[in-house]
Amino acid sequence: MAASIAPADRMLIEWECDRLVRRFAMLNDDRDHDGLAALFVEDARFSRPLAPESWTTGREAIRALFRDRPPRLARHIMTNTLVDVVSATEAKGRTYMTFVSTTDLSKTPPVAEPVLMYGQFDDLFVLEEGEWRFKERRGSVALRFEAKA
Amino acid sequence: MAASIAPADRMLIEWECDRLVRRFAMLNDDRDHDGLAALFVEDARFSRPLAPESWTTGREAIRALFRDRPPRLARHIMTNTLVDVVSATEAKGRTYMTFVSTTDLSKTPPVAEPVLMYGQFDDLFVLEEGEWRFKERRGSVALRFEAKA
Amino acid sequence: MAASIAPADRMLIEWECDRLVRRFAMLNDDRDHDGLAALFVEDARFSRPLAPESWTTGREAIRALFRDRPPRLARHIMTNTLVDVVSATEAKGRTYMTFVSTTDLSKTPPVAEPVLMYGQFDDLFVLEEGEWRFKERRGSVALRFEAKA
Repeated sequence: MAASIAPADRMLIEWECDRLVRRFAMLNDDRDHDGLAALFVEDARFSRPLAPESWTTGREAIRALFRDRPPRLARHIMTNTLVDVVSATEAKGRTYMTFVSTTDLSKTPPVAEPVLMYGQFDDLFVLEEGEWRFKERRGSVALRFEAKA
Repeated sequence: MAASIAPADRMLIEWECDRLVRRFAMLNDDRDHDGLAALFVEDARFSRPLAPESWTTGREAIRALFRDRPPRLARHIMTNTLVDVVSATEAKGRTYMTFVSTTDLSKTPPVAEPVLMYGQFDDLFVLEEGEWRFKERRGSVALRFEAKA
Repeated sequence: MAASIAPADRMLIEWECDRLVRRFAMLNDDRDHDGLAALFVEDARFSRPLAPESWTTGREAIRALFRDRPPRLARHIMTNTLVDVVSATEAKGRTYMTFVSTTDLSKTPPVAEPVLMYGQFDDLFVLEEGEWRFKERRGSVALRFEAKA
């Protein structure tokens, strides 16, 4: 808790961090790796949901991680974002992610792979140069839903 | 960007447009076509996700579009809404939509059709008579997830 | 509507109630029954989505309901939350819920049960001791999506 921050100011921080989470998803699905990298501070670290303990450290390494992925059509559906303000320049949060994707674009609309992944991101946010950015973003997966057995 | 708008005022616009997106979904699923029509300005245009380039233009035509649809039980699940404020009276945004529906109500709870649609809405919002309304709402579908192959 | 409440104050109430809905989901999925109980006022009542008319009344009974459930891994995905402010101390709202779960943890990540439930919560919120809490939370299910026929 950050008792010295007025409710309206706290809401604005929570809202900005929530927007950051949504921008991550949109830029990721748009395959805009430069836009994605700009959401992280210089010394941030990131792990993907399928490899929570495998950290990529530094904005440039994070940019390369996204840039060098095999192309795919994906939707990162972000929900339940809950941000807790630590101070006027620090916050932490958790977001649920539903992930659906395909590499096969032969149909219209494309048919997704027969698995939906249900995961989450645990985030540390910091205010830097007037913008809220990711300091740490740890992915993990909780469940998979399979269309075929 | 709208540099001259204070952060708290910008947040309020973003929030109002986000609420508009959520009200669209609730009213649509409630089959309240008059309520839906009231979310659009008089000369708005709208396209459905399955026919992005087929525009319905004008509030009355939009009302008729929703009113004359075959009945179905549906849920428009709206997530990831990201609104960018253009000016004190204009904004644009994107929202992800997961769509699930059925026309068969024979079971309790009803069993959905074996397809989940993953689409989005790209919106233009305007402030009119003190309320944020849709000026343009363009649907599209990115992926379909199939329960049976 | 609450015409006498300034837009910024109304937004803060809507935001706090939205956060309450998200906290309910996180604490539920974390199986933190004491944390969950603290979100309800002393004389609140709650019904589960699969039994909308079966009310559990009182914070202690609600705590026991959550505490005594069989263990499972679940995700309550909350979306579309729409809160309407009734007065400075009362609000109501509706939230869509997508529910995915499993009791089988033998695989990594665990494979969910072959059903996704699509439901909702209809809520009454009250301000008490400076915090927004649930006065009434009624669950219901609209649709089920099945992976196998």
